[in-house]
Amino acid sequence: MGVFMEIAVLIFDNVNALDVVGPCEVLSKIPNSVIKYASKEPGPKQTDIAVKLVIEYNLEQIQKADILLIPGGSGVKSVTYDRDVLDWIIDKHKTSTWTVSVCTGAILLGSAGILKGLKATTHWTCLQKLADFGAMPQKERVVVDGKVITCAGVSAGIDMALILTSLIAGETTAKAIQLAIEYDPAPPFGVGSPDKAPKEIIDLVIRKLEAHK
Amino acid sequence: MGVFMEIAVLIFDNVNALDVVGPCEVLSKIPNSVIKYASKEPGPKQTDIAVKLVIEYNLEQIQKADILLIPGGSGVKSVTYDRDVLDWIIDKHKTSTWTVSVCTGAILLGSAGILKGLKATTHWTCLQKLADFGAMPQKERVVVDGKVITCAGVSAGIDMALILTSLIAGETTAKAIQLAIEYDPAPPFGVGSPDKAPKEIIDLVIRKLEAHK
Repeated sequence: MGVFMEIAVLIFDNVNALDVVGPCEVLSKIPNSVIKYASKEPGPKQTDIAVKLVIEYNLEQIQKADILLIPGGSGVKSVTYDRDVLDWIIDKHKTSTWTVSVCTGAILLGSAGILKGLKATTHWTCLQKLADFGAMPQKERVVVDGKVITCAGVSAGIDMALILTSLIAGETTAKAIQLAIEYDPAPPFGVGSPDKAPKEIIDLVIRKLEAHK
Repeated sequence: MGVFMEIAVLIFDNVNALDVVGPCEVLSKIPNSVIKYASKEPGPKQTDIAVKLVIEYNLEQIQKADILLIPGGSGVKSVTYDRDVLDWIIDKHKTSTWTVSVCTGAILLGSAGILKGLKATTHWTCLQKLADFGAMPQKERVVVDGKVITCAGVSAGIDMALILTSLIAGETTAKAIQLAIEYDPAPPFGVGSPDKAPKEIIDLVIRKLEAHK
């Protein structure tokens, strides 16, 4: 059986590595799927964890994106006004089966006009910004609205991808992938969302992120 | 303040991407830390998710590894008899503050003789193999035995790294990093460990992994 599902992942300098790798670790295991990572200019692309990803495809080489995956990261701000990238997102979204974002990848979907009138989410530090794009910000980990799926910050991409896998390939496949990556999370602290974290931890994260701007 | 903690990550072809990126997404955020990815021969290294990582350091260039991080993946079997790599692990382990593995990275620690007499864990499909190295296999997500930390499959590296961060930099820093990556996991199914998954899902994963051997 040949490939029947192509997954296109937009990559840019200073993309968040876990935004990419979390969901791709899940989606790459869907039978008969292939992942293509594409950027405006191919070559090595820096991530937030001091390792570069080798990107082989330019945007024009992506013929088809059954799943269009847009990750986030500090590099989002450098592409959010890049008309070529936004036009590519709009174009691929027209024919995608699913258009999904992780973390601040939602800002790019918003900038491309895709979130207008939709329920959506993103990293908690910029959730309200989604309203600027005409979206309805949701305090949820994964939001499915029609064919657009957005999720919360960074690690939420794993949960999103498992949900997406169950929608595409059924629960049995999604469960097998979850077990294959032994995703039985046991975070040491109960502070992974702003609703659960004390104010001093929230303030600390906001100060760190501000310092990086 | 200069860098006070160097983190060395062993990379090899067909390393599991999430084994690397999960913990590095956490550890890279420890103040005054630097991560160096090293392989026997530098250059682009293939991962399991069809994207290559650009590795800049060879093993000899790693002077110091306060944290020695050994990921797993299908490529483990090609380095498990590589004397140069095992000797490097043994050498760096002598002076490391922490030696840690993710998933089947524990097989490499075992092959290097580091797990002898220690409690340890790895991906559930090869947990009992750790006994061959003189280790005491533990059905736990993260196992700390002295300065050696091992963890379960793939996604467990995130939990491991948060625990390690709290040991190195304190709970406040670990909590802030957990909130920064919004690690408030919500897996769609309760089947992430073999104790929780039905037999048909376990069998399906084992069959898939066998097919890849």
